[in-house]
Amino acid sequence: MVDKASSDINLSSLDSFFNPASIALIGVSRDIRRPTGRSLNALLKWNYPGKLYPINPNHTEIHGLPCYPSLFDVPGEVDMVIISVPASSVLAALEQCVQKKVKAVVLFTSGFAEIGAEGKALQDQVTHLSRKNNLRILGPNCVGLVNLSNSVMASFANIVDLKPVYPMTLGFVTQSGAFGTLIFATAVAAGVGFSSFVSVGNEADTEFADFLYYLLNTEKTKVVGGYLEGAKNGAKLRRAAEQALKLKKPILIMKVGRTGAGARAASSHTGSLAGDDKIYDAFFRQMGIIRIETLSELTSFVIVHRSGRLPRGNNIGILSISGGAGVLMADKCESLGLHVPEFTGETRRVLEQYLPPFGSAKNPVDLTSAAVAQPEMLGNCLRALVADENIHMINVAIGFVPHNAPILAKDLIDVYQSTTKPIVLVTYNVSESEVTAKAVKSIEEAGMPVLQDHLHSVQALSNLAWYASRLRRPVEIKADRYTFKLEKEIEELIKKGGALSEHEAKKILAAYGIPVTREKIATTADQAVKVARKIGYPVALKISSAQIRHKTEAGGIRLNIKTDAQVRVAFRQIIASAKKYMSQAEIQGVLVQEMLQGGTEVIVGTVDDPVFGPCVMFGLGGVFVEALKDVSFRVAPLSRADAEEMISEIQGHSVLRGLRGKPPVNTEALIDIILKVSRLASDHKNTIKELDINPLILFKKDAKVADALIIKK
Amino acid sequence: MVDKASSDINLSSLDSFFNPASIALIGVSRDIRRPTGRSLNALLKWNYPGKLYPINPNHTEIHGLPCYPSLFDVPGEVDMVIISVPASSVLAALEQCVQKKVKAVVLFTSGFAEIGAEGKALQDQVTHLSRKNNLRILGPNCVGLVNLSNSVMASFANIVDLKPVYPMTLGFVTQSGAFGTLIFATAVAAGVGFSSFVSVGNEADTEFADFLYYLLNTEKTKVVGGYLEGAKNGAKLRRAAEQALKLKKPILIMKVGRTGAGARAASSHTGSLAGDDKIYDAFFRQMGIIRIETLSELTSFVIVHRSGRLPRGNNIGILSISGGAGVLMADKCESLGLHVPEFTGETRRVLEQYLPPFGSAKNPVDLTSAAVAQPEMLGNCLRALVADENIHMINVAIGFVPHNAPILAKDLIDVYQSTTKPIVLVTYNVSESEVTAKAVKSIEEAGMPVLQDHLHSVQALSNLAWYASRLRRPVEIKADRYTFKLEKEIEELIKKGGALSEHEAKKILAAYGIPVTREKIATTADQAVKVARKIGYPVALKISSAQIRHKTEAGGIRLNIKTDAQVRVAFRQIIASAKKYMSQAEIQGVLVQEMLQGGTEVIVGTVDDPVFGPCVMFGLGGVFVEALKDVSFRVAPLSRADAEEMISEIQGHSVLRGLRGKPPVNTEALIDIILKVSRLASDHKNTIKELDINPLILFKKDAKVADALIIKK
Repeated sequence: MVDKASSDINLSSLDSFFNPASIALIGVSRDIRRPTGRSLNALLKWNYPGKLYPINPNHTEIHGLPCYPSLFDVPGEVDMVIISVPASSVLAALEQCVQKKVKAVVLFTSGFAEIGAEGKALQDQVTHLSRKNNLRILGPNCVGLVNLSNSVMASFANIVDLKPVYPMTLGFVTQSGAFGTLIFATAVAAGVGFSSFVSVGNEADTEFADFLYYLLNTEKTKVVGGYLEGAKNGAKLRRAAEQALKLKKPILIMKVGRTGAGARAASSHTGSLAGDDKIYDAFFRQMGIIRIETLSELTSFVIVHRSGRLPRGNNIGILSISGGAGVLMADKCESLGLHVPEFTGETRRVLEQYLPPFGSAKNPVDLTSAAVAQPEMLGNCLRALVADENIHMINVAIGFVPHNAPILAKDLIDVYQSTTKPIVLVTYNVSESEVTAKAVKSIEEAGMPVLQDHLHSVQALSNLAWYASRLRRPVEIKADRYTFKLEKEIEELIKKGGALSEHEAKKILAAYGIPVTREKIATTADQAVKVARKIGYPVALKISSAQIRHKTEAGGIRLNIKTDAQVRVAFRQIIASAKKYMSQAEIQGVLVQEMLQGGTEVIVGTVDDPVFGPCVMFGLGGVFVEALKDVSFRVAPLSRADAEEMISEIQGHSVLRGLRGKPPVNTEALIDIILKVSRLASDHKNTIKELDINPLILFKKDAKVADALIIKK
Repeated sequence: MVDKASSDINLSSLDSFFNPASIALIGVSRDIRRPTGRSLNALLKWNYPGKLYPINPNHTEIHGLPCYPSLFDVPGEVDMVIISVPASSVLAALEQCVQKKVKAVVLFTSGFAEIGAEGKALQDQVTHLSRKNNLRILGPNCVGLVNLSNSVMASFANIVDLKPVYPMTLGFVTQSGAFGTLIFATAVAAGVGFSSFVSVGNEADTEFADFLYYLLNTEKTKVVGGYLEGAKNGAKLRRAAEQALKLKKPILIMKVGRTGAGARAASSHTGSLAGDDKIYDAFFRQMGIIRIETLSELTSFVIVHRSGRLPRGNNIGILSISGGAGVLMADKCESLGLHVPEFTGETRRVLEQYLPPFGSAKNPVDLTSAAVAQPEMLGNCLRALVADENIHMINVAIGFVPHNAPILAKDLIDVYQSTTKPIVLVTYNVSESEVTAKAVKSIEEAGMPVLQDHLHSVQALSNLAWYASRLRRPVEIKADRYTFKLEKEIEELIKKGGALSEHEAKKILAAYGIPVTREKIATTADQAVKVARKIGYPVALKISSAQIRHKTEAGGIRLNIKTDAQVRVAFRQIIASAKKYMSQAEIQGVLVQEMLQGGTEVIVGTVDDPVFGPCVMFGLGGVFVEALKDVSFRVAPLSRADAEEMISEIQGHSVLRGLRGKPPVNTEALIDIILKVSRLASDHKNTIKELDINPLILFKKDAKVADALIIKK
C-alpha cells in the first residue's frame, strides 16, 4: 500500500496556494454570507496585494472590481481559483481551470466522498483530473486556507474576520473544518499568532502531510500544529516529521480516534483509513511529534516555544507564592515525566537566606505570602535556581499587585536576560489594575513567556523538554550494518506464493543473521534419531508443514525428548496426529530441533499497517501479552534508539533485568534482532504480511529463535 | 494509631464557627490591609447580622463601633473570636477566650508547626488548651472561614471582596490558604456559588474532616469540595464520606502529593502525615469520593450537578455541530469510562430522517453546519436521543448565532423539561451578541447546565455517572457472616509478643475460616515420614521457626517430595541448613504439608497505614507483583462490592478467567478470603502490623493458603 515514490511532495506546486499573484473566484456573489462572497470580502478587507478576478455572468462589477462572465474572459494569468459552485458543476469548473492553466484550486463545495458511494465516484473524477493535468486542488468539502503574512484569505470560516496576532509563528493544518476554526479562534484569543491555516477537507488531491511539509519549509512558521483523524499516507507524514527534526521545528498533533467510539466516528467523518491508534502513538514518539489532547496544550506550547529556548534536561525548579499550587505543579511535573530534584549545597543555602522561616527551601520553593510585602525575595530566589547547574528550566507562579508589580517585573526581566534557561511566568488576574497589566506586558515584551494557568505551564514545559530530548537523540539508521546478500534459495522462499513452514521461516531469519535453533527435518524415525544424536539430547520434535500453522492444536509438538526410543515414539505419534488433524496437509516431515533450556521468553514480530506499512512489535511472552497486551510498536525502519525505547517502554520491562534469581538477559542481542527484523520487513514489505517470532528466548549471553511464522501477502 | 473513638465529630460545637450570634476581633485595627481589619470591614460590608466587638486598647471606636480594651470588657456573651496577634501572644489571648466562655476561635496567626520544632511545641500547647477547655479553634496559620449565607466573613483572604454567586451549593474546605483562595476566586468567576469556605491551617484542634462532615450536614450545601494534602485521621474522613453517601451529596477532593516530589513538598507544607497516595486513591474509590485533578473539574461538576439529575447508567449520546469536536468528545468519554454506544432501530431511523446526507447518524451525531441554517434539526435529533432507553445522558455542543438562537433555546428548553436525563449544553462565545446571550441565559434559567468547554463537560458527566454508580452500589458490610469466636489457643497466639511461624499464622487464618494446607510439625525424621504418609505424597517440607522469616534463603524448603526416603533426606538437610543459617533460632521442627498442584498463585495481605489503619492488598503472584507492582488496595473493613472491585481493577485480571488452557478460578472463594482477611485485620488492628498470604493458590473449585506470614506491632 505504502509506496516510497508516493512520499514525494512537490513544494513549488503547493506554493501557489500560499503566494498566488492572482486569484479568481468562480460563482462569487456580493452576499458576504455566501462562501466565495465572504472570501472576496476578506481578501479586500485585509488588502490582498495580488490581482482579484470575480467570476459571475450575472454581474459586471462586485465591490468596485470588474466581474467577468467566465474564467476565459480574465485578461491575465490566474494562479489560484476559489470554487464553491454546486457539486454537479464542479467538474466543468475544474476543466476551465485546466484550460486556463490555473495552478491551484481551493474547492469549498460539499457533496463528495463524505455523502457515500455516489459522491465518492465524483471525487475520484476530481482526483483523476487533478493528477492528469497537474492541477493542485485543496478540498473538496473544506473551509479553505489563509496565509496571514500576505492576506491570502481563501476561506469562508469566521477566522477571516479575526484581527491577526503577532508574532505569526504557528502553521496549522486540520482535517476538520469546523473544529479547526474553533481551534483557530480559541488560540488567537489566547494570544497565539498564526502564519497559515489550512483545512484539507476530503483530500482528493493534496493531503494533510503535504501541507505539514510545506509549512515547515516556510521561513515564518516556527512550529506546526495539526488536527488529524487519519493520515492517507504514512510515508509522507514520516518525511514531514524527518524534515521537522532537521529544521528543529516542533510538530504538535491532536490525533483523535483513540478509542473505539472515536475511531468509528473519525472514519465516518472523513474517508480516510483510521489505522491503529497504537501505531500512531508509536510513530509520533518515534518521530518526535508532540501528541496533544487539548487546545490549551497547543496554545501554551506555542507561547512558551516563542522564546526560542530549549531545556538541556528534564529537571525543573518551581517557585510559587502558594505552597498548595507548588505541590500541585510538582505532582503534575512528575506525572508528565519531568523531574523535580531536591536542592542541595549552595542553592539551598541561598534560598534559606532569603526565605522566611515558614517558607520552604525544598523544590517546589514556597515563597509564602511574605513575597507580597518583600517582592525582591522572588528575584533573589530565582537567581539561585538559575545558578544551579542541575536545574534545566524554571516555572514561577506569583500574583502581581500594584505596589510590588514594578519590582517583580524588573527582577524577572533582569534574571531572564541573564540566562538561556527556559523560564515561564504564571500569573493571574493580570488586567485587574493598569500598573500590574503594564508590568506583565513589559515581561512579555522582554521575551519571557507568560501564562495564566500553572498546569498549562507545566504541561508546555514538559512537552518542550520531551521535544528537546528528541532533538538530542540519535536518529540515524545504520543501513549498511543490516544489509544482507541473500542466497538464491532464500530469495525464492520469500518470493514463492503461499505459506511457509517454521523451518522455512527460520531459514529466512538466519539469512538475516538472526540466530535460530539448530534443527533439521527428518522424514523417517531412523533419520530423526540420527539428527537428534547429532544435535544432542534433549530435543524437541515438531510437525513440519506449511499448512499446519497451529502445531500444538494438531498434536504436532513433543518437547524435552531425552532418548532414541522416545524420538521413535514421538515421530510416529506426530505424523499420525497431523494426518488426522488435516488430511490434505502436505507434510515435509518432522523437525528435530535443539531444546532450549531456561532463558526468558519474548515475542518479536511485524504487522503491516494500512497507513504506515511494516511495523515492528515487541513484548514479553506468555501471560504478559495475553493478560496485559503489554507490547510496543515502532514503524520500520527503526534506528537503534527506537529499538532501545521499544524495549524499555513495555510495562514488564524489569523482567529483562532478571527477577527471582534469573540473570539479566543480553539486551544487545535483543536490539540486534529487532533491527534485523526491521530490515527484513522493510526489504520485503510488498511480500511479507506478518512475521512472528514467538518465542524468542533471551539468555545471559545471547538469544535464539525457538519458533517462527511468516505469512505472505 | 487510628482509634475508633477519635472519629467522633461534634457538630454543635462546630456550628459556632458558622452561625455565631456575636464576634469579637482581638487586636483589630482600622487598617483594612491588616488581617482582622480586613475581616471587620467585610463583616460590616456584607451586613453580618450578629453583634460585633472590636478589641484594641488603643481605640475607643472603629468604623462607628465601640472598641473595647480587652475581651473582659465586652458587655455580653461572645460566641466567636478572631485572633491575629503575634504567635508569642496567642496563648494569653486564648486564655482570655476560655475565661470569657467563648465557643470558637479563628486563629490567623502564623509561626507554629510550619516553622519547625519550636513552633510545634507552641502549637501543642494550643491543642492542649483547646482540648482541656473544650474551646474549638480553627488554625493557626489559616486564612479563616466564611459562611456566605449569613455573612460570617471571618477571613482576610480577598474572597471576602467577591460578589456572591447564586445558588450557593458548594461548601469548600482547604488545607492551603493561598491555593484555596485561588480556587474560590476561579470558581466564582466560572459561575459557581459557595455556601461556605474554610481554610483549616495547621489543624491544632479542628481538622479537614470535621468541616467536611459539618458542611455536608448543612441544608444549603449540596456538594462538598476539598483541597487535601494529608488527612490527620482516616476514620473521621471515612465517617464524613459515609454520611455523604447517606445524604446523597457528592464530595470532590483535590488530593495532592501523588508523586515523590509532590508528597515531599506536601509534607513540608503542612505538619500532616502524607500517607501512601495509593491508599488514598483506593479509599476515595471505595467511599464514592470524586478525586479531581484540576479546578475546571470542580467548577464544571458543580454546575452540572446543580440540575439535580443523575444518569441511570454509563451510556452517553453526543450531538455536535462539528464532526471533529464530536470525535474528540467520544475519545474523551471512552477514556474516562463512559460508553458511547452505536444507535440502533428507531433512534437511527429518526436521526437519518432529519440529518443531511453528509451528516452522521452514528454516535457522536454530526449535525454539520446545516444545523446553522436549520436550527430545528437540533431539537429533532435531541428528542430521538431522549427517547432512546439505551442513552442515559446527553452532551450537546453547538454554537449560537443571532438568527437561530431563539429557536435553539426554545427547543432545548422544551426537550430538557420533557425528560429527567442529564443534558449539558456546550456553547462558545456566548456574549458576542445580545440575542445569543439572552437565549443562553434563558436555557440556564430553565435549569439546564451550560458550559463553555466540551472536554470539561464530558469530564463532569463522567464524574457524575461514576458518582451515580457509587450511589447504586451496595455498601453494607455483612459483619455477622464474618464474626468468629476464637478458641483460647488462637487468642493467645494473636496476643503473644514477637513473631509467629508459618504454621502459627495459618492456625489464625484457619480460625477465621480461611482454608489452609493440611500440615503438621514433625520433630524427627520418623515422625515426618508418618505425617507425609497420612497427608499423602507429594508433600512439601519447610523449616518451622518464628525467627526464620525467609525460609528459602535459609535453605529451609524442599518441594514435591514423593517417597519416604526423600522425606528423611530432606528433614536432615533442612534442620542442618537452618542451624547453619541462624544458629540462635528456636526451631519448632519441620513442617510437613500437602503439596498443592496447579492452580493460580495470588497474594492477599494487609498493611497498616498511618492514616487509615489496616488496609487489604490483593495482587497476582510472581512476576506480576515484582515486575508491574500490579496490586490493589482497600481500607478495612471491606464490603463485598469492595472485594469484587479490588479483584477486577488489577491489570492482569484476565489471568483469573483462565489463560492458556487453564480453567477460570473460583472468584467466590477469593472474595470470601479477602473479606475474612479484612475482618481479621480489623479485629486485631492494635496487634497485627502486617499479614501476608503468599501464595494463596486459587483453583477451579476452591482456594488454599500455601504460605502465610503475620508480623506483630
